[in-house]
Amino acid sequence: MSNPIAVFDSGLGGLSVARHLRSTLPNEEIVYFGDTARVPYGIKSRPTVAHFALEIARYLLEFEPKLMVAACNTASALALDALIDGLPVPVVGVVEPGARAAVELAAGGTIAVIGTEATIGCGAYRAAIESFSPGARVIARACPLFVPLVEEGRGCDDAIVRAVAEDYLSPLRQQNVRVVVLGCTHYPLLREAIAATLGPDVHIVDSGEQTARVVSATLAELGCLSTGAPAGTMRCYVSDNPQRFQQVGSRFLGHTIEHVEYVPPERYITTPVIPGLLR
Amino acid sequence: MSNPIAVFDSGLGGLSVARHLRSTLPNEEIVYFGDTARVPYGIKSRPTVAHFALEIARYLLEFEPKLMVAACNTASALALDALIDGLPVPVVGVVEPGARAAVELAAGGTIAVIGTEATIGCGAYRAAIESFSPGARVIARACPLFVPLVEEGRGCDDAIVRAVAEDYLSPLRQQNVRVVVLGCTHYPLLREAIAATLGPDVHIVDSGEQTARVVSATLAELGCLSTGAPAGTMRCYVSDNPQRFQQVGSRFLGHTIEHVEYVPPERYITTPVIPGLLR
Repeated sequence: MSNPIAVFDSGLGGLSVARHLRSTLPNEEIVYFGDTARVPYGIKSRPTVAHFALEIARYLLEFEPKLMVAACNTASALALDALIDGLPVPVVGVVEPGARAAVELAAGGTIAVIGTEATIGCGAYRAAIESFSPGARVIARACPLFVPLVEEGRGCDDAIVRAVAEDYLSPLRQQNVRVVVLGCTHYPLLREAIAATLGPDVHIVDSGEQTARVVSATLAELGCLSTGAPAGTMRCYVSDNPQRFQQVGSRFLGHTIEHVEYVPPERYITTPVIPGLLR
Repeated sequence: MSNPIAVFDSGLGGLSVARHLRSTLPNEEIVYFGDTARVPYGIKSRPTVAHFALEIARYLLEFEPKLMVAACNTASALALDALIDGLPVPVVGVVEPGARAAVELAAGGTIAVIGTEATIGCGAYRAAIESFSPGARVIARACPLFVPLVEEGRGCDDAIVRAVAEDYLSPLRQQNVRVVVLGCTHYPLLREAIAATLGPDVHIVDSGEQTARVVSATLAELGCLSTGAPAGTMRCYVSDNPQRFQQVGSRFLGHTIEHVEYVPPERYITTPVIPGLLR
């Protein structure tokens, strides 16, 4: 089935998920939308994030996707139900795949989850982990500076990155953590700094990597895997600033982004809002 | 004239400007709008920032303001012309007042401007300074981490704040800077850390403080100062997350925010967009 996989994110972070989709499913077409006009979602409320996510997802239906990936942890944590209810295609979020992998690796040990203010605040990872492992010991920690540090181009060797990682994560060293879940798509770019702070005995789960596996399994189950021989392409759409997306985004994707197109607001804004969704 | 002064910002940073308006003009009514659903503006493009700013400013016309303050440095830097053209009331931005004060204090010496990526990238401060002082020596530096550091609640004594300030500003110490302009409304909350990094010989200009003076002078000139005896009140409106605005915003305003109201998107979203404004 040659219809594309649609992937969306609040901005460019979801490209770290797209990277794993590309390597796991090299024959698939991918259409990616980054909501760069309204990024970030991580400090915003559930109704607003759900409204934005539904607007973007509905725009992506134009491409007749066979499956939709909410590559944004905040959107997955706050709006997955609204997306599943509101869309006529299967939707995969990043929280459940990350939580499931963490439970398997932890083998009963303590799991730490790090993410944005909204992702951690709503408790979605904790709930998902407890659904797979009732009574699991979960420590959740918001790490708001990691996103702007990555966006500024700082890497794992940067002294500020190391100091911030120490500030956020050193308390976890006393907690006998066995697994840490990178519950934000920006965090894989700081993986080594996070690993260095936590020490060699802590497993790291990249929710995006796990999500690519779930997408692959779901498509196989539905009989919808692409059987085309040629390599799939990826087209990117953004609500603002295609140049910045292309420049900064390549680090997330691991190679140059070839196709980026600006989408004006009248193509995706749907006001009045979805009744009952906003307070 | 008892009509209010309307103040808007991408989020809560403009409250540091409102604080000076309140102390300079204690009799005036203030209506404040923080676009917390789409915050921040500082990494976004000129057309998008202009579109958002005009939407918010037009919504504020409902309150029949006698004057509008673009309390956001990014909106002032990228969209002041669009605001002046598009609104039937006088508009005051924060860039020109800050630039003018810097030129006066510098007395021919070097001026440094710090702000968001968009404010610095568009060169608005540089242009304003050069309009007052042709040939002035201006150094501009984006300091993207300062905003999330403040939003996270870190203050001037925080070790990470000190390290980031040192990282951004220590190169300025070799440049014989006489004045630094705080070209972002969040930066006054880091004033002491910035001062400590630059040393005691560098004057600090808070654009918000200077803007309050310009607003006062403009209202006096127009004969529109409020003559009412009672103290003016301030009402705040936000496009998302009133609770977070109230909690975090009090630090910017210097006291508790009493009235915060959520405004749903159908009250301010104007799509299709303003013709010709977006690419």
